Amino acid sequence: MTEHFLEDYQVGQTYSSSVARVESGRIKSFAAEFDPQPFHLSEEGAAGTIFGSLAASGWHTAAMTMRLVVEGTLRPAGGVVGLGFDEFRWPSPVRPGDELRAETEILEVRLSKSGPGHGVIKVRITTATQHGRPVQIAVGHLLVPGRERKDAKEAEAMNTAV
Amino acid sequence: MTEHFLEDYQVGQTYSSSVARVESGRIKSFAAEFDPQPFHLSEEGAAGTIFGSLAASGWHTAAMTMRLVVEGTLRPAGGVVGLGFDEFRWPSPVRPGDELRAETEILEVRLSKSGPGHGVIKVRITTATQHGRPVQIAVGHLLVPGRERKDAKEAEAMNTAV
Repeated sequence: MTEHFLEDYQVGQTYSSSVARVESGRIKSFAAEFDPQPFHLSEEGAAGTIFGSLAASGWHTAAMTMRLVVEGTLRPAGGVVGLGFDEFRWPSPVRPGDELRAETEILEVRLSKSGPGHGVIKVRITTATQHGRPVQIAVGHLLVPGRERKDAKEAEAMNTAV
Repeated sequence: MTEHFLEDYQVGQTYSSSVARVESGRIKSFAAEFDPQPFHLSEEGAAGTIFGSLAASGWHTAAMTMRLVVEGTLRPAGGVVGLGFDEFRWPSPVRPGDELRAETEILEVRLSKSGPGHGVIKVRITTATQHGRPVQIAVGHLLVPGRERKDAKEAEAMNTAV
């Protein structure tokens, strides 16, 4: 799939992903390593808690979303390099059997103040289930190289070759 | 360790964690599952990239931080239940051999508008290496039960018993 440079992104564009199914066993093993709390570790442990039944760690949801975005259609040249988020929410819990999809919308495109030839895109990444229920909303900033930078590098390489 | 209720938290308090060492093998296997990009997958793949050498996925850092907070001294009654973040940044990359510690500072304590007997604490969680280099800064909101809620539940249970 084609890589995208800063000049390829425009406000309002949306990019899609494939689907990832959430498995009960991986919810529990992820939690055992990174978020060992009753509502993420077992059905029995979750029963009396605020979640009511087994729910994935928010960090498991975030990690699954990253995979969807990395393999989706956004494809920034140089990779998906996140600088940080202005907003990050889990509006509803992720349950076993949920099938997650991540949609990325371009909110802003701007040249970087620090690195010449690089820019930053501001994006809203919405992770939702097969029923359209949003489970994660993240508004953040990704570093993206500009096309002129690539051209400059190629020219440099040609000069070296010549 | 004692659990804390809303009334136990005060602005300016800080809570500590133990230390987690970042292993090169786990950086790569985490990335293979959740963030399959060259700079997280191998030393060789990272060499020509913006990271220069192998760096952990930001989501691996976030997940390791969660473990440190869950097992640290913060101990909210009912567990560490995050509602979301207003700010979330990775100021520098996490490298193999880094030893991470998470410090949580209480920024605000307030009663919840929706759930009676619950409140929300606003916290800044700073993850830093053994050299004091910050690798993640997260300002977010955690749901915490109030002590009166616990008392009400206990009273209810006693009435039922009687």
